[in-house]
Amino acid sequence: MAKEKMVQQITSMDEDFAKWYTDIFKKAELVEYTSVKGCMVIRPYGYAIWENIQHILDGMFKATGHENVCMPMFIPESLLQKEKDHIEGFAPEVAWVTYGGTEKLEERLCVRPTSETLFCEHYANIVHSYRDLPKLYNQWVSVVRWEKTTRPFLRSREFLWQEGHTIHATAEEAMEETERMLNVYADFCEKYLAMPVVKGRKTDSDKFAGAEITYCIEALMHDGKALQAGTSHYFGDGFAKAFEIMYTDKENKKVYPHQTSWGVTTRLIGAIIMTHGDNNGLVLPPAVAPVQAVIVPIQQFKEGVLEKANEIADTLRAAGIRVKVDDSDNSPGWKFSEYEMKGVPVRIEIGPKDIENGQCVTVMRHNRQKDFVSLDGIADTVKQKLDEVRDGLYKAALENRENRTYKCTDMDGITKALEAGDGFVKAMWCGDEACEDKVKEITGVGSRCIPFEQENLSDVCVCCGKPAKKMLYWGKAY
Amino acid sequence: MAKEKMVQQITSMDEDFAKWYTDIFKKAELVEYTSVKGCMVIRPYGYAIWENIQHILDGMFKATGHENVCMPMFIPESLLQKEKDHIEGFAPEVAWVTYGGTEKLEERLCVRPTSETLFCEHYANIVHSYRDLPKLYNQWVSVVRWEKTTRPFLRSREFLWQEGHTIHATAEEAMEETERMLNVYADFCEKYLAMPVVKGRKTDSDKFAGAEITYCIEALMHDGKALQAGTSHYFGDGFAKAFEIMYTDKENKKVYPHQTSWGVTTRLIGAIIMTHGDNNGLVLPPAVAPVQAVIVPIQQFKEGVLEKANEIADTLRAAGIRVKVDDSDNSPGWKFSEYEMKGVPVRIEIGPKDIENGQCVTVMRHNRQKDFVSLDGIADTVKQKLDEVRDGLYKAALENRENRTYKCTDMDGITKALEAGDGFVKAMWCGDEACEDKVKEITGVGSRCIPFEQENLSDVCVCCGKPAKKMLYWGKAY
Repeated sequence: MAKEKMVQQITSMDEDFAKWYTDIFKKAELVEYTSVKGCMVIRPYGYAIWENIQHILDGMFKATGHENVCMPMFIPESLLQKEKDHIEGFAPEVAWVTYGGTEKLEERLCVRPTSETLFCEHYANIVHSYRDLPKLYNQWVSVVRWEKTTRPFLRSREFLWQEGHTIHATAEEAMEETERMLNVYADFCEKYLAMPVVKGRKTDSDKFAGAEITYCIEALMHDGKALQAGTSHYFGDGFAKAFEIMYTDKENKKVYPHQTSWGVTTRLIGAIIMTHGDNNGLVLPPAVAPVQAVIVPIQQFKEGVLEKANEIADTLRAAGIRVKVDDSDNSPGWKFSEYEMKGVPVRIEIGPKDIENGQCVTVMRHNRQKDFVSLDGIADTVKQKLDEVRDGLYKAALENRENRTYKCTDMDGITKALEAGDGFVKAMWCGDEACEDKVKEITGVGSRCIPFEQENLSDVCVCCGKPAKKMLYWGKAY
Repeated sequence: MAKEKMVQQITSMDEDFAKWYTDIFKKAELVEYTSVKGCMVIRPYGYAIWENIQHILDGMFKATGHENVCMPMFIPESLLQKEKDHIEGFAPEVAWVTYGGTEKLEERLCVRPTSETLFCEHYANIVHSYRDLPKLYNQWVSVVRWEKTTRPFLRSREFLWQEGHTIHATAEEAMEETERMLNVYADFCEKYLAMPVVKGRKTDSDKFAGAEITYCIEALMHDGKALQAGTSHYFGDGFAKAFEIMYTDKENKKVYPHQTSWGVTTRLIGAIIMTHGDNNGLVLPPAVAPVQAVIVPIQQFKEGVLEKANEIADTLRAAGIRVKVDDSDNSPGWKFSEYEMKGVPVRIEIGPKDIENGQCVTVMRHNRQKDFVSLDGIADTVKQKLDEVRDGLYKAALENRENRTYKCTDMDGITKALEAGDGFVKAMWCGDEACEDKVKEITGVGSRCIPFEQENLSDVCVCCGKPAKKMLYWGKAY
């Protein structure tokens, strides 16, 4: 009963994808709105997902030699203006502090939309010799961008992220770093979030304000829209020149260093929802699930049931599994639908009969497969189920992407392909920005990236018919 | 040579304590100034200390049932104004955002100086029934207070902290929570930071804006000044009434819940510097030291020395010790003074002769005690040394506090006692704010707290001679 009631409360994703998304983040208690538009409360269950993401990524950053720091949240206007492309890109969307207490500030301060300028000011202070290089820094903070249209996790005025900022002696080293961190992001998304991504490079019209090259990973959501899941930028020596950062090299010459920056945000939680969620709620990849296995006792009032449930929990916990026993007085049916809504990867049911038979029931969230398994070796069994969930999620997401990726060689082909539903379009491009604009205007899909894995679909641009330089991924984007 | 050179660069703490403090945070590379007054860059070595503090405290919070969340950084002016004592306390020192991009905001937003109002708004949304209580929330963020005089870690315009915010069905539960968290802070400071603290209650003139009761822990620095190291506030139902937070109790009546908040900040790093540091630099308590043991190879060019140094490092690392081998081409003398400056608790020296004898040299940072120890069981030996450092630091800090704590029964006594140097003054108090003010005016020391451990020094107030209610700790404060 309870179960049906809960399920009815969620909008089906086929009916209204946007409303389905909202239902999930509300009912799974990830986020709550506040009275400031575009600013959200990340609730314990949502924040625990972010903590798991942080924990894994931070380990990957440190394993690749990075150190954490913390920069101020305020940037003086004059500092933000030092690099001209950068200020042009960000000025329209920053929040300005103009008063401290009752006193008007002499120079207004923006709340960081990103921290390149702060890192540059710092590097100018501490980088003097080749011995000071590289600096491989990262910070976990929130940033503010005054967006017009906002949506929890996907586009908010304040969001949490990490921003890596590195400075190197040579262009080669900086390029290697840019690529290395894109690979870290891609590996993280695929391995831990079970989310396949396309690695590529942004076209010039779409790169980060101040960057020479922007790499990105692009994922495809359930509804066929693309989501940029992470970016890694190569700055060359542009910021160094603007901020007069120079170092003395081994030949005792003063030269400019080369920089990078790279970031992922709480957007990844939105990506998890829209990649794996279904009409029963959230579905979490085990690596970042706050609760990996929930134990629901059946006929818990009967002697020995709760004891056994807690015993199993202890065994799983000792094996490093995040586990919860729900011994509340809600019905098992209510609990089933509650933890489906919350996307707990594995449910374990244990009742008097199971105990008699030395077994329990496991149900995997993503495909609802139900198994009777022995209590002997239960920790290994559950670990195996968690791996199965991860692999099943990845496979399903990859299938969705493949089913929704269309190879097109002319404009009509794009329009026709998209009649089946939104998705990635692969098509050739001459390299001209005018063609990017025209494809978007006519078909509705913009360029997402120039993928590293190139294919030769034809020799000519899908738009103008001139010789093609690259194959692009196109799509509608979040 | 190098060593002497470095040591000469630090101002002696007896000569100029403030300059000594500045020298330490600069030369140990904890912090760097930025172009925004009162906002600092926390550098990798400083931030790693904070990460260790976070890791331990976060574990203690979770072990006591707390969950992490994340609130927005902006508070609309109308929301800040809902609780009148709170706004009076904070309005003069908040930073105001008045523009988003090029658009003037309809209502200005302050950058959170603390988040009671945001938590209250959220609780009003999610707390309806006794079943929703308690909520035991915490967040790790930065806050902004527009201070006039600033000093890295001790008083800055932006600082990092954690703020716990809890809401309970009854006053009793909320009071228990307030005390529990003060005890968590005190245990943390004493056990992990090796810093003795006095637990007590603030007088009414000194409590948090909006609180009914403020508890605090107070520590005494090298120079005899007091430092408030943490606070825990009991709000009663004042905020609940102001924000109309009500829940239905078991008897189906609508009643107000009771709240608390509690916080510690990056100030703790300032406290570590001023409690343990010496004229050779920083001295770090092992539990939060980024590097617990540094290995300095002697005659490292000789065969087998670096191999052995790395072998020892592997052994220590496997035992969970944070260890670093410095195999740079700097001289051992330079390295000795570098890691003394950085406060690494234990230094290990290993050279060809030591290897021959199956031993190495350990030097403890706090007392420079040098020991020849066997390489057999080196991990246990180093762990024992780390414990010795912690115990030695605690003992020395406690001694300093005891030597600088004066029991006084009249005003002249206070003035005379303080001629020997600043410190804690214990003296009786009638409970009248006028006497607090007068003591401060005449002797220079303000009330720090009403300690939980009371003593009866006399029956009358040190100031007015009327019957005394409590013994107070008085002191000059950071």
